[in-house]
Amino acid sequence: MSQPTRDVIAIGNAIVDVMAPCEDALIERLGMTRGGMTLIDTARAHELYEAMGPAREISGGSAANTLAGLAALGANCAFIGQVAQDQLGEVFAHDIRAGGIAFETPARAGDPPTARCLIFVTPDGQRTMNTFLGASQFLPPAALDEAAIADAAVLYLEGYLWDPEEPRAAMRRAIGAARNAGRKVAFTLSDAFVIERHGADFRAMIETGDIDILFANHVELAALTGEDDFDAGLAALAPKVPLLVVTCSEKGAVAVAQGSRFSVPAEPVERVVDTTGAGDLFAAGFLFGHVRGRPVDECLRLGAICASEIISHYGARPEADLKALVAERVG
Amino acid sequence: MSQPTRDVIAIGNAIVDVMAPCEDALIERLGMTRGGMTLIDTARAHELYEAMGPAREISGGSAANTLAGLAALGANCAFIGQVAQDQLGEVFAHDIRAGGIAFETPARAGDPPTARCLIFVTPDGQRTMNTFLGASQFLPPAALDEAAIADAAVLYLEGYLWDPEEPRAAMRRAIGAARNAGRKVAFTLSDAFVIERHGADFRAMIETGDIDILFANHVELAALTGEDDFDAGLAALAPKVPLLVVTCSEKGAVAVAQGSRFSVPAEPVERVVDTTGAGDLFAAGFLFGHVRGRPVDECLRLGAICASEIISHYGARPEADLKALVAERVG
Repeated sequence: MSQPTRDVIAIGNAIVDVMAPCEDALIERLGMTRGGMTLIDTARAHELYEAMGPAREISGGSAANTLAGLAALGANCAFIGQVAQDQLGEVFAHDIRAGGIAFETPARAGDPPTARCLIFVTPDGQRTMNTFLGASQFLPPAALDEAAIADAAVLYLEGYLWDPEEPRAAMRRAIGAARNAGRKVAFTLSDAFVIERHGADFRAMIETGDIDILFANHVELAALTGEDDFDAGLAALAPKVPLLVVTCSEKGAVAVAQGSRFSVPAEPVERVVDTTGAGDLFAAGFLFGHVRGRPVDECLRLGAICASEIISHYGARPEADLKALVAERVG
Repeated sequence: MSQPTRDVIAIGNAIVDVMAPCEDALIERLGMTRGGMTLIDTARAHELYEAMGPAREISGGSAANTLAGLAALGANCAFIGQVAQDQLGEVFAHDIRAGGIAFETPARAGDPPTARCLIFVTPDGQRTMNTFLGASQFLPPAALDEAAIADAAVLYLEGYLWDPEEPRAAMRRAIGAARNAGRKVAFTLSDAFVIERHGADFRAMIETGDIDILFANHVELAALTGEDDFDAGLAALAPKVPLLVVTCSEKGAVAVAQGSRFSVPAEPVERVVDTTGAGDLFAAGFLFGHVRGRPVDECLRLGAICASEIISHYGARPEADLKALVAERVG
């Protein structure tokens, strides 16, 4: 088997985040699920946007955010995701390419428009996300570049995108392509609602050994295993995946690799401005260490550092020089 | 004459800012005028966007920024400006309305798209602006709501918009409407390039007494008066306008009202992140004081406080609670 040219290729939602600060009362008044991610239709998108304060637009999408972090750290990355032929699609494509990430999926003509996520950020920095999937859910299996998948050390998949049918089929094909080429498959569970709907799929993929690296947060771990106790959940899941990484917000993160457990505290931050992208950037730091062959405890630390940068400002794409930040703190 | 319902109505460019940090070398490599504003066509817009790093989109436009500050302080405002029927037009309209500003100008169908300004921010916080005017330059005189103009204490006009022909005609009509209703006309010179092209118009309007409040920075003052010496410029211009306000970046600002001169130092800031909108927000603070009948020195101080908020973060729309900030510092 030849050596892969790329470090990571990811398949995910191609989304522009529309973010605004808001008071706690608004979350309740609009009937939103605080801290969660909810899929919304056009009518609800209009209603929520109407109620939102002056906003800013920053490219997002879970796996795309992770790649932005990886590329900023120096990894060679590619992204597969579906935008529409519209201005937000141009914004998304510009931002990901300007970050040095290869992005060749052709934009889709006609309706629906490019996906957007309306993010309300409460004074505690917590984000409440409302995603209008638009074009993103129409990623066709034909858009997959199997040669590109075979040419990356890791295929990274976003659980959010398991929900719509076409991308799910595309991701199943991508897993096959990665497996055939002897590459690793990394998967992030994304959100408890995805597990509610597709937990059986995920458990089957884990049982058959299709997932080499699994990312989850503590809520998703509980949802997938049915174990409310963190350690019990970890004990149930860890034997089934070579590398399990579980983030626990301000309590840090834990990884279990081949039976050994490692943990890292959260990196201190001056002020939590916006938690959007914390998990995505944790995955970026961790995966960067992993593809560079670093030990698991250092991978965790890299994840914690990247997550701390992203929650210090609005938006889920890094602002600080991540490479310099990591060099300063890890050496 | 009846009392006006609104505090300020403004006519200006309806622009979305596309901003990214950049190294000093890039400014030179792209042949941009550091710290200035340059009008660009479609081809140059593509070239510059291509060279720009990952960006964020935040509504802008000089007069619109000023209104955003005024509204945040509690003023009752309306905006007149031209967006296209596209996603960036929706973003602009949303942001200005969400700030509590009335905005009724119908979006324009077809090409060109909504205006955007590609802003490169160097490590010293200086912004270099490249404006693609798009739909903004097609504001028709017919879009003016003369009743609304007559119903605002101050008509605020942006010099940038004097350049394209249709909006210039619209602004001349607006001045007439404000004058007929006995309202004040405030004008900002915007940029030296506008004065180079339209200085004769501006000088004529000043001579005929059409401008009650004139905003400029020290560079624009020199360009308009032909006096390189600041005091000489001030002495030449001040007798011709009832209220002249000149900002001098980190040196603060000066106002001359009916022969009396007032000045204010710049408000200290922890770190200058992005100077975009500094003049716009200075005008916001000053005008807020003015319409509330505050003395000139307090108007200057309000301007300095608002300017200091805007240069502490990316984007030309206020992020902090300006009302609280002002209450805390001025009482």
